[in-house]
Amino acid sequence: MTAQEVEGGRFVRQRNRFTETITADGGSGYPAESGRYRLFVSYACPWAHRTLIVRRLLGLEEVIGVGVVDPIRDERGWRFPDHDPVTGTVFLSELYLSSDPGFTGRYTVPCVWDTETGRLVTNDFPDITTMLETEFTAFHRPGAPDLYPVELRPEIDELNDLVYRTVNNGVYRAGFATAQDAYEEAFDALFATLDGLEERLAGRRYLLGDAVTEADVRLYPTLARFDAVYYSHFKCNLRRLADYPNLWGYARDLYSIPAFGETTDFDHIKRHYYVTHPTINPTRIVPKGPLLDWAAPHGRERLASG
Amino acid sequence: MTAQEVEGGRFVRQRNRFTETITADGGSGYPAESGRYRLFVSYACPWAHRTLIVRRLLGLEEVIGVGVVDPIRDERGWRFPDHDPVTGTVFLSELYLSSDPGFTGRYTVPCVWDTETGRLVTNDFPDITTMLETEFTAFHRPGAPDLYPVELRPEIDELNDLVYRTVNNGVYRAGFATAQDAYEEAFDALFATLDGLEERLAGRRYLLGDAVTEADVRLYPTLARFDAVYYSHFKCNLRRLADYPNLWGYARDLYSIPAFGETTDFDHIKRHYYVTHPTINPTRIVPKGPLLDWAAPHGRERLASG
Repeated sequence: MTAQEVEGGRFVRQRNRFTETITADGGSGYPAESGRYRLFVSYACPWAHRTLIVRRLLGLEEVIGVGVVDPIRDERGWRFPDHDPVTGTVFLSELYLSSDPGFTGRYTVPCVWDTETGRLVTNDFPDITTMLETEFTAFHRPGAPDLYPVELRPEIDELNDLVYRTVNNGVYRAGFATAQDAYEEAFDALFATLDGLEERLAGRRYLLGDAVTEADVRLYPTLARFDAVYYSHFKCNLRRLADYPNLWGYARDLYSIPAFGETTDFDHIKRHYYVTHPTINPTRIVPKGPLLDWAAPHGRERLASG
Repeated sequence: MTAQEVEGGRFVRQRNRFTETITADGGSGYPAESGRYRLFVSYACPWAHRTLIVRRLLGLEEVIGVGVVDPIRDERGWRFPDHDPVTGTVFLSELYLSSDPGFTGRYTVPCVWDTETGRLVTNDFPDITTMLETEFTAFHRPGAPDLYPVELRPEIDELNDLVYRTVNNGVYRAGFATAQDAYEEAFDALFATLDGLEERLAGRRYLLGDAVTEADVRLYPTLARFDAVYYSHFKCNLRRLADYPNLWGYARDLYSIPAFGETTDFDHIKRHYYVTHPTINPTRIVPKGPLLDWAAPHGRERLASG
């Protein structure tokens, strides 16, 4: 999760600092190899959640190891419950500072570590999933889905841009706003997009049709956190996800896929947000509710044309 | 609304200081008279809301005047938008301090002022409604309901006690808790009572049967604030009121009665809670949601036996 900064009542997300990339041909200096790279995530963080979903969908569990930080972050940043068994670090910051001693930004997940050079390759969350999809194809499991098909990329990219601005980051813009107008602007844009997605999903099972793509991977983590956290904690409360029949059925449909459902940890999610944001929840009390039935039948198989 | 104090993570409501009473026979020194007493309220405050409902149900609008404070309270306490036209005061505190210069508690609504002696008679919110019901009978409108029938008082009192502890004050105990266990204790007790009330209202239109009583007057203000405020702001989010079919229908049934509906000001309610509690909502942002249809048909006429 990247930094929170507020400028004139508006939340502005920090730019990512580490933006190198791993390539299939190694031209970037970081060749795609099995067992070389380590992915650091929080189950709480929606940007990290994407990477866990894609890693699992593509069968990269044995190719790229994962280190999971504790959901509760204090002023020292993310830390490991004990220490990371591969790198030996206790705080995520150690990896950032050993790669760049002059680094002054916030230490964010997801990020990818190169065990060979002992350097952080990237914390550029929008590019990590597509990197796994396009540069690690040699390591994908047999029958792995094409999450980013060439012919659909323009439509996926356009949708992802809208979803990023108004939904993924939109909930943060609403929640971290300190001015009523900035909050309302984010709120209105968020629900306008959700209303549009609700219509879009009336006639198709997934955002791009019959198959899961990168667009679904990016929308899902925000939906998974919506009623449990964003509705109350970030004041995104025009409607619940559960009040959108298509979106809620779609979210449960995805949740029933192990790559989505088994990477969704509501305990980490709730504890992270409610305990880590003293400017929004100074008491750090974690709500016991809401009751949500993510396992309820979604009935969306009928939408598959195949 | 009375003071908020937290002891060992638990919210403890301050005792009321002014506990004199108005009596029909004047034996208390304050005889029930028309035009003599002034009731000070906030539309936001659930304890004050009770008094507005009863005043209206009993037709006491011309008998007891009302002064309404601004919903947003700062460290100086409740204030009038401009000044109270009858007493000329700007801050509610002036009435407290002119009655008792040594008063050191918080200045709360509802409270009753005697224009003749220029003194505060009572801020003892549990007794104000029953005082209007039992001591002002000579001034009730023709056909006014008996909200506190003698034969039902033991059952009403018992129910009110449970509702006060676990619901009316229970939401505050949840919301102002600063320890997780204190919060969860209040949360569990709250929803246990709501579950019980949901069952109770399956077979009867109002809490005591076919007629509105003091028990309904006391439950309603908390229900009216539940989804709009308590669910998120006080973390009372196991279920929404809207998730309880009987309770939600019952609340809308009451809302359709002008004494209830026309004294329910969602704008004052939302602005008060979200702007006035910096320990819970430091940003003071007021949520735009939720969408709630209080005017939807409730269908509870079928439960009336009469």
